[in-house]
Amino acid sequence: MPSKQSEAVVRHWATARLTSQLPVAEQPDRETADHAWAGLTSEPRDVDYLSVSEVPALWIVPKDAVPDRVLLCMHGGGFLSGSIYSHRKMFGHLAKAVGARALVFDYRLAPEHTHPAQVDDATAVYRWLLDQGVDPARIVFAGDSCGGGLVITTQLRARQQGLPLPAAAMPFSPWVDMEVTGDSYDANRDRDAYFHRDLVRDLAAMYVGEGGDPRDPLVNPLYGDLTGFGPIYIQVGGDEVLVDDARLLYEHARKAGVEARLDVFPDMQHTFQMAAGRAPEADDAIQRMAAWVRPVLHREP
Amino acid sequence: MPSKQSEAVVRHWATARLTSQLPVAEQPDRETADHAWAGLTSEPRDVDYLSVSEVPALWIVPKDAVPDRVLLCMHGGGFLSGSIYSHRKMFGHLAKAVGARALVFDYRLAPEHTHPAQVDDATAVYRWLLDQGVDPARIVFAGDSCGGGLVITTQLRARQQGLPLPAAAMPFSPWVDMEVTGDSYDANRDRDAYFHRDLVRDLAAMYVGEGGDPRDPLVNPLYGDLTGFGPIYIQVGGDEVLVDDARLLYEHARKAGVEARLDVFPDMQHTFQMAAGRAPEADDAIQRMAAWVRPVLHREP
Repeated sequence: MPSKQSEAVVRHWATARLTSQLPVAEQPDRETADHAWAGLTSEPRDVDYLSVSEVPALWIVPKDAVPDRVLLCMHGGGFLSGSIYSHRKMFGHLAKAVGARALVFDYRLAPEHTHPAQVDDATAVYRWLLDQGVDPARIVFAGDSCGGGLVITTQLRARQQGLPLPAAAMPFSPWVDMEVTGDSYDANRDRDAYFHRDLVRDLAAMYVGEGGDPRDPLVNPLYGDLTGFGPIYIQVGGDEVLVDDARLLYEHARKAGVEARLDVFPDMQHTFQMAAGRAPEADDAIQRMAAWVRPVLHREP
Repeated sequence: MPSKQSEAVVRHWATARLTSQLPVAEQPDRETADHAWAGLTSEPRDVDYLSVSEVPALWIVPKDAVPDRVLLCMHGGGFLSGSIYSHRKMFGHLAKAVGARALVFDYRLAPEHTHPAQVDDATAVYRWLLDQGVDPARIVFAGDSCGGGLVITTQLRARQQGLPLPAAAMPFSPWVDMEVTGDSYDANRDRDAYFHRDLVRDLAAMYVGEGGDPRDPLVNPLYGDLTGFGPIYIQVGGDEVLVDDARLLYEHARKAGVEARLDVFPDMQHTFQMAAGRAPEADDAIQRMAAWVRPVLHREP
């Protein structure tokens, strides 16, 4: 049975559904919407935040973090919203649990900017991080929702550009299938408090852009070659319409010989990890990510 | 005419008034209420935040801040709510405008903790700040609402304890009169979107505590001896029921020979400065504080 605290996630998405039906002029602006999302997360304490000048990014530095281990964090928001500040606290909880620094960044958003702006921005931040002298074997990509897609497509783009791949990736509630094919759109239609097939089709169209190809591997990593990628740990909420996106990504990774794990969290909604510090399911998910990734990040060279 | 953006402050307080009428079980918890308040403020960029271990405080460090100048920031919330995180962004805007570091801290809250817990906690943080080697001539106290009262009472307490006084103080929308005597409770009864005499009487009773004296100078600085205090710059919104608190404090300071300035901002609500980065009136208020305090803080020794 879902915890009482996790009901806040259901309420958040139910409110977002209602709000999305308002006339555009009455809908909250991006910063207001991001702030509402951030309200799900408790404030992690004993964490420093350092603004970066060269790229639009924020260092999240837990007091006891090992400085040369880095989570490169890619926020969700359907490529339309989300920011450093919607996700600062949630990635702060993750960084604390892992005992590493995290770098969270802003990227250009749709509909003003379509593919490949987002994956290019993410790749530029990864390149900057490597330029700081961080060993790619000490870097893990983490991201939720569309950011979960970015953690894969950014690796494809990085490889195209001759950059080394990171040690591992942790996409959670990943959104990857821009053809919107999953059976879970039907199976979880009445369980998902916000997303549904038509909405995700609209989001995909805005991201792909006019003339874009929903099968371009940099748009849809299910068409990408994941051979040689580091291990991937995927989490998804059992009540999401996107549960098949997680399954498809898991199967696609395994077929490419990538070490992969998928955890489905019963009764949970999309990006339920945003309730970190409040809901036990979110804290459990964060702890599982930390337990999975710590041996990878802290392995002796 | 008030700006369109400043209407968000009116809506915030109007919502708080509605919420305060709900049964206690349905009222938001403190962190949720603080998060809602923080939603008025835009995210100041190019600011670092450093968690302090020894006291429950956060350093707010604008990229171009002069490190040895410090604003000691005391948050509002009726002594019942508010936190480092409700006010992080607003004090971040102020610190950027001043070009100084700011230290914002949590103190114990009513009704669990009554006077003098709050002033003792504030004084302890001030002592800690002095112990870091910061020159009191480079320290300015700033605070809103009950924090505006604290910037005065903390000086009284500090002097009792033999500590040096800070260079100056900037209370805005200060709440100081625990006897709740102001005529503005009547004059602005229909203009103030949240506060009214009965509510403030209840808040005062919770802060003063059973057996406490509303004329104790550490509770009510209108009974304190302000002789020898550094200059004081007070701001208040013209629509507040607390406008007389600001006037009474201003007159009390002048009578003690303290250099004082009072700016009343027409049509503005309580702590309208929380709309910093969004509403022009809030930005104007922040800029006026910065222009007033910069010569004090940056004076050659």
